[in-house]
Amino acid sequence: MGRKIYLDGNMVPENEARISVFDIGFMYGATVYESLRTFRHKIFKMDEHLARLERSLRYIGLEPGAIIGEVADAVKKVLSANIHLTDKDDDVWMCAQVTPGKGFPHPVLKQTDYRPTIIVFDTNMPYADYVRYYSEGAGIVTTRVRNISPEVIDCRVKHRSRLHFFLAKREAMAQDPDAYAVLMDGNGNISEATGANFFTVSGNKLYTPPEKNILVGISRQTVIGLAGEMNIPVVEKDMNLYDVYNSDEAFLTTSSYCILPISRVNGVKTGAGKPGAVTNKLLDAWSETVGVDIVEQARRFSGI
Amino acid sequence: MGRKIYLDGNMVPENEARISVFDIGFMYGATVYESLRTFRHKIFKMDEHLARLERSLRYIGLEPGAIIGEVADAVKKVLSANIHLTDKDDDVWMCAQVTPGKGFPHPVLKQTDYRPTIIVFDTNMPYADYVRYYSEGAGIVTTRVRNISPEVIDCRVKHRSRLHFFLAKREAMAQDPDAYAVLMDGNGNISEATGANFFTVSGNKLYTPPEKNILVGISRQTVIGLAGEMNIPVVEKDMNLYDVYNSDEAFLTTSSYCILPISRVNGVKTGAGKPGAVTNKLLDAWSETVGVDIVEQARRFSGI
Amino acid sequence: MGRKIYLDGNMVPENEARISVFDIGFMYGATVYESLRTFRHKIFKMDEHLARLERSLRYIGLEPGAIIGEVADAVKKVLSANIHLTDKDDDVWMCAQVTPGKGFPHPVLKQTDYRPTIIVFDTNMPYADYVRYYSEGAGIVTTRVRNISPEVIDCRVKHRSRLHFFLAKREAMAQDPDAYAVLMDGNGNISEATGANFFTVSGNKLYTPPEKNILVGISRQTVIGLAGEMNIPVVEKDMNLYDVYNSDEAFLTTSSYCILPISRVNGVKTGAGKPGAVTNKLLDAWSETVGVDIVEQARRFSGI
Amino acid sequence: MGRKIYLDGNMVPENEARISVFDIGFMYGATVYESLRTFRHKIFKMDEHLARLERSLRYIGLEPGAIIGEVADAVKKVLSANIHLTDKDDDVWMCAQVTPGKGFPHPVLKQTDYRPTIIVFDTNMPYADYVRYYSEGAGIVTTRVRNISPEVIDCRVKHRSRLHFFLAKREAMAQDPDAYAVLMDGNGNISEATGANFFTVSGNKLYTPPEKNILVGISRQTVIGLAGEMNIPVVEKDMNLYDVYNSDEAFLTTSSYCILPISRVNGVKTGAGKPGAVTNKLLDAWSETVGVDIVEQARRFSGI
Amino acid sequence: MGRKIYLDGNMVPENEARISVFDIGFMYGATVYESLRTFRHKIFKMDEHLARLERSLRYIGLEPGAIIGEVADAVKKVLSANIHLTDKDDDVWMCAQVTPGKGFPHPVLKQTDYRPTIIVFDTNMPYADYVRYYSEGAGIVTTRVRNISPEVIDCRVKHRSRLHFFLAKREAMAQDPDAYAVLMDGNGNISEATGANFFTVSGNKLYTPPEKNILVGISRQTVIGLAGEMNIPVVEKDMNLYDVYNSDEAFLTTSSYCILPISRVNGVKTGAGKPGAVTNKLLDAWSETVGVDIVEQARRFSGI
Amino acid sequence: MGRKIYLDGNMVPENEARISVFDIGFMYGATVYESLRTFRHKIFKMDEHLARLERSLRYIGLEPGAIIGEVADAVKKVLSANIHLTDKDDDVWMCAQVTPGKGFPHPVLKQTDYRPTIIVFDTNMPYADYVRYYSEGAGIVTTRVRNISPEVIDCRVKHRSRLHFFLAKREAMAQDPDAYAVLMDGNGNISEATGANFFTVSGNKLYTPPEKNILVGISRQTVIGLAGEMNIPVVEKDMNLYDVYNSDEAFLTTSSYCILPISRVNGVKTGAGKPGAVTNKLLDAWSETVGVDIVEQARRFSGI
Repeated sequence: MGRKIYLDGNMVPENEARISVFDIGFMYGATVYESLRTFRHKIFKMDEHLARLERSLRYIGLEPGAIIGEVADAVKKVLSANIHLTDKDDDVWMCAQVTPGKGFPHPVLKQTDYRPTIIVFDTNMPYADYVRYYSEGAGIVTTRVRNISPEVIDCRVKHRSRLHFFLAKREAMAQDPDAYAVLMDGNGNISEATGANFFTVSGNKLYTPPEKNILVGISRQTVIGLAGEMNIPVVEKDMNLYDVYNSDEAFLTTSSYCILPISRVNGVKTGAGKPGAVTNKLLDAWSETVGVDIVEQARRFSGI
Repeated sequence: MGRKIYLDGNMVPENEARISVFDIGFMYGATVYESLRTFRHKIFKMDEHLARLERSLRYIGLEPGAIIGEVADAVKKVLSANIHLTDKDDDVWMCAQVTPGKGFPHPVLKQTDYRPTIIVFDTNMPYADYVRYYSEGAGIVTTRVRNISPEVIDCRVKHRSRLHFFLAKREAMAQDPDAYAVLMDGNGNISEATGANFFTVSGNKLYTPPEKNILVGISRQTVIGLAGEMNIPVVEKDMNLYDVYNSDEAFLTTSSYCILPISRVNGVKTGAGKPGAVTNKLLDAWSETVGVDIVEQARRFSGI
Repeated sequence: MGRKIYLDGNMVPENEARISVFDIGFMYGATVYESLRTFRHKIFKMDEHLARLERSLRYIGLEPGAIIGEVADAVKKVLSANIHLTDKDDDVWMCAQVTPGKGFPHPVLKQTDYRPTIIVFDTNMPYADYVRYYSEGAGIVTTRVRNISPEVIDCRVKHRSRLHFFLAKREAMAQDPDAYAVLMDGNGNISEATGANFFTVSGNKLYTPPEKNILVGISRQTVIGLAGEMNIPVVEKDMNLYDVYNSDEAFLTTSSYCILPISRVNGVKTGAGKPGAVTNKLLDAWSETVGVDIVEQARRFSGI
Repeated sequence: MGRKIYLDGNMVPENEARISVFDIGFMYGATVYESLRTFRHKIFKMDEHLARLERSLRYIGLEPGAIIGEVADAVKKVLSANIHLTDKDDDVWMCAQVTPGKGFPHPVLKQTDYRPTIIVFDTNMPYADYVRYYSEGAGIVTTRVRNISPEVIDCRVKHRSRLHFFLAKREAMAQDPDAYAVLMDGNGNISEATGANFFTVSGNKLYTPPEKNILVGISRQTVIGLAGEMNIPVVEKDMNLYDVYNSDEAFLTTSSYCILPISRVNGVKTGAGKPGAVTNKLLDAWSETVGVDIVEQARRFSGI
Repeated sequence: MGRKIYLDGNMVPENEARISVFDIGFMYGATVYESLRTFRHKIFKMDEHLARLERSLRYIGLEPGAIIGEVADAVKKVLSANIHLTDKDDDVWMCAQVTPGKGFPHPVLKQTDYRPTIIVFDTNMPYADYVRYYSEGAGIVTTRVRNISPEVIDCRVKHRSRLHFFLAKREAMAQDPDAYAVLMDGNGNISEATGANFFTVSGNKLYTPPEKNILVGISRQTVIGLAGEMNIPVVEKDMNLYDVYNSDEAFLTTSSYCILPISRVNGVKTGAGKPGAVTNKLLDAWSETVGVDIVEQARRFSGI
Repeated sequence: MGRKIYLDGNMVPENEARISVFDIGFMYGATVYESLRTFRHKIFKMDEHLARLERSLRYIGLEPGAIIGEVADAVKKVLSANIHLTDKDDDVWMCAQVTPGKGFPHPVLKQTDYRPTIIVFDTNMPYADYVRYYSEGAGIVTTRVRNISPEVIDCRVKHRSRLHFFLAKREAMAQDPDAYAVLMDGNGNISEATGANFFTVSGNKLYTPPEKNILVGISRQTVIGLAGEMNIPVVEKDMNLYDVYNSDEAFLTTSSYCILPISRVNGVKTGAGKPGAVTNKLLDAWSETVGVDIVEQARRFSGI
């Protein structure tokens, strides 16, 4: 019995989870979403994710009240329906998406169905994609493609109008096949990776781009919290490649891998060219907090 | 027997046309498309549309060759399958969409299916949405939401990462419930409506924003061509509200309504506050070119 | 015996207070000024106002020494001449303006009279304009018209070259007849209302735009001081509509109403859509500091 | 019997022409105006001036109809009342100003008098200010103060919110006491002088900044027309100091002096450091067109 | 007897041509220069090069008169001293440089020697670097490093403050070892290669970036001239990667290789991925004009 | 026996210290360097200088390891070779420069010699240039020439592509012959002087531009450190002329004069128009720290 997906109020088999081609999420990229993961089979920082989703909904003009409730329920349902497929020491990644509903052919002005489309699905953790970077460090390419301006869509909204992320990923892969893409903002400062936040370590301090030009990740806030507990100062400031080439360490944060050490940026070695001491300490602290050895779990269940 | 939609090589009933939630078109807004219409049951300017689609595909890194062929075939198939549903004096609107395929949960890096998703569907002309504006003129609201910068995604690509268009439409409706949204570029110059190009008429000349910040519409090029034949000079230049408030006439162009007279912008009367003489002359010329009285057809089949 | 106005060294009846059409204040908008009010018939924060006027004068190249002295005297004279017209529990609003003098027809190069024009006048508090917003909250519209760049005129100078404020007010009124206009800076961040500063409250913290793009209001500094005493943190940061739509409360500050609760921005409800708890606490604290119940006074003397 | 000024419907003696301190023109710099001159006692290009005033009025939201009529009448009245003071071979400069009326203390929202304030006055031509530059050439300083962005107020509106012009003039005088100030736009391109347009001559072509960032002068258009008749090509393009330092000639245009040769920019000699051949030819052509030897008239009546 | 270099008035052997470390050209990058080549042992477009050098000198504040004369003489001297080293069917590349002189340690304020440093040297044509690209086409990488803004140094000045060119070359090489670097301007439009101009061919028209953001190459002007004679329209317009990926052909122009076909940009095939027909036609036309088969000469003397 | 200079591994007499005209430092302005001075014949903050040089080298892509070692040695050698020329109470200024080596005629792609060029030289302190400003205060001119954008070359790299500094100095001298040039960044905020950092004092606080747009001087950091010890708060913030005209004091910092009081900016008196109390206190503190009376030393050895 395979995975089930929550779709418009129903639990449907994964391979039957399809949406109308007239859905505004598909026609306008007008989907807002959250990306979550479990630790020990519990959703990590559920409240923070729902609060951010609420802000995204309000920004795109959907009344958050009922939607947030339905999403919270759906997350529980999906977890309860599928968790038996997951080893007790393994975990899952989950995605909750909301679109404004259906409209055709002129969304908004003549929307045909105002009921939001709500989709929640989970999947195995994609350990194989990144597990080796815990020891090797991953590569980053900073792309020509720039991040979208807040005058167009505020970066703090987690949405799916991300053709520029798709383009940035392709551009990064063309230069360094395994590298992650990092976009600059309109002024040439580092903004964010496509779905992850960026940190450097210099002289035992953490540096990360300020909130104005990024999706403010729950994982980013987790790292800032852990650093606080470990008395590592965190400085939010605009950074460019001068900062990166002269930093001791660098890493990305996102909900799946939590913290991913970076060992090269645009082909240039970062610090010692391998995961740094502060990066590893933060990763250890995170593991301790959630009661899961994050790296060990990824190795054990990566299937590699 | 209802309309059929072309989806991934098959003709399927409209209400069964659904795509995977893991389609990159849905997950990244990474869909490129063309919006077409028929005159006398023939697609208008098919070659121009395919040429533009080819440019869009190349920009997002998909090899256009086979895709363009399949889209051309699909358009014919859909037309032939559904045209019997349409009165011989009526016409249809059609949409051809291409996504990079399926990828989950990490599109691009670990794309699971590299076959592009190709969707072609048609529909009745949405006359009821706009027919009265041929005589009254429509309203426009210039929105706070700005158009996306070419440093992020080139405006000449017709794509579906358009949350900002969704937001702009909502913003326009909040100020003037029937108005169309027009976005400014990052410098405060008029860019385009959400799916249409903007023109003004002043002293018997046409003015329209230059190509750098707009989707260069086939309808826009049609108007420029008609104007050429009518010896009406066309000037491509950056414009703002000073130009608009001091113009004699204004109109939008798109594939469905062709030319839509504008009678007010941000609540301010444009010219005489009704469709202008040059606008109407251009519309007449277009009707003549295609052998269909565009306005009359809209009135007859609007169902109002 | 009616109000008297201080004009060029004399006290003249209000309706006779006229300036030459050749005054540079009229010909160039080259007036700097302060807007003041009394509490219990004493000018509030007189020294702070004079210090700011001094900075404005220096910026436009007038030697502040003698002018500041004359303005200080004139304020006293006007207050003493007119205060008998005001109930002992009521107060007055006052305005002190300085222009570079007269020049015609080529100001500066061939200025005809280098004596600055100094004007000081007072008036009844305009309670009727805003008293109901203390309980209902007022509306705000963020305008297309942007605030002037510091590369043209520094925003910290309080001056009368404000055609853009006039345009912004008209634009706001067209969308929401009773709303106040708020302008964005050149980067799309919130700058200020036309003659007032903007604050939000989120999670019991105050947020307000930083000094670089605003007229740094004495009332704004008063609120920051009160918040400090109440242990409410104040964060100066760039904000846009994402912040506003997701804030708990919002308010404006200016010398007349002191603090004005905001209940909607661009037609969207702010927080609970009514004056918030923190806003009201700050207003109470201000009332206490000055020994005047600000809201009660406005209600009693509004004439409504 | 001295000059009379048209003010609010009446003809009043010049030294009694005063406006209320509560006039919105004074309180907001919200005055739009035209600056005119006569040739042989006839207003030059009256229709062009009224058309531009009409555009300015529409931009600031005043219904132009009645105002334009009153201004046209007032210009005639002032001319007829005062022309006897002027030698038959001399001419006058005239200014027509319109403000939105009176409002206090909250213009617009609570405007107290919606009748526009209309002022028209004339004066002797200020020949003494510039006559020697016809033979010597004048100096220009390009200022740190930048011109206002069209996102704030469109540069094509002729208005009196010009504190930045006042500041620019002072800055220019501080560097070169007799020099005219020229402002750059926000991108560092040459915009305009404070009340005049800028031209260079290179290789027998005229170059002048494009319309988007300037007040489009009637005199500028006159020069473009004359150049057309003389088969001198005119190129509208963005220019900076590289262009200026490498041009053969430069001049300003405005309604009083018509064409003013420039001989130095920021202390650097322009071309041969004296009025150029093309500049002089254009000035001669202008003189011929209007039947007045512009330079000779200035010399004769300059009083120097 | 080896090559001689002109240095400060003397002809010195190449390996003894050294400048003071206190030269302002070395201390400030304040060198302006021209890069020339011969055809049939005659300098190509000598007058155009001297005219541009004159403009560069004027821009940096050096009086061009005497310098231009000395440079013209020096070019002749170098040619006459070294041309015997060159086969009669081969040619040479030459460089003429001017610095403001010596100053230490505070150039300008306390310049120690105001005599400009003038250096002229020639060398074999570097055919081996590029000869194979005439048949294969070369690669281009558009770099993260942007071109300098005209508000800092006008791009039309040919100077040696080019650390950004050095950085761009390294960046290009890291991605594609044989590729040429092309820089974007501050708005993300294509500016120029490091020492060459960029052209595309689309639908039998030439497109090239406008003069405002480039060093306006003599070779670029030669191509524009040749295109004119061949009735190929040339459009100067801002371009970005959308234009490049959708063009039929692309090429670079500079004084050494004249026209260099481009076959890939950022790893993406340009047009057919080989030198295009229009490109080759222009190259043939150039060869004909100068009486040298440019490609054949490069093959014969490349030493490969 | 005169001074010796370290050049490419050798100690050579000063007037024989010449570099190849093909050095990339001369051909591309691709030199990075440090400017140092001694106190009591010891290099001040040697480690900080070497650390910054290391960051500069890494940014331009040179492996710092061996270079830093050689530079450190060379500084010692030069000091030991020349210090006997300096009075025991006097000190020297020193400069250490590194270029990528030689390349001709196509640096980087075909670099002919990859050994970096390393030059270290010292000189007498240039007291005569500035000694009188310790008592009078110096003048500053803020130039039209803007500072280079970090998107082109990061300002934190100390390099010699500084034609814009040369231009700025000339511009400043043209307005005020003895004044120092200060450049604004691309947004019109104060960046830095040509080789020095800028500070103001207001209300007993220090203000200085933030690191993002400046060369972060070792002297600047020294002042920040001294201020910390003296409990004077230091605020890093964007500043413009409003701040400067309204500040109490201003000064520059660099390695030679350490702290230079400013008494006028653009001809406008700063504060009291003479060195301020806080400025002098900081200078005294610096003198005390290094055991040298900085002002007294300058006076004694200035040779005036």
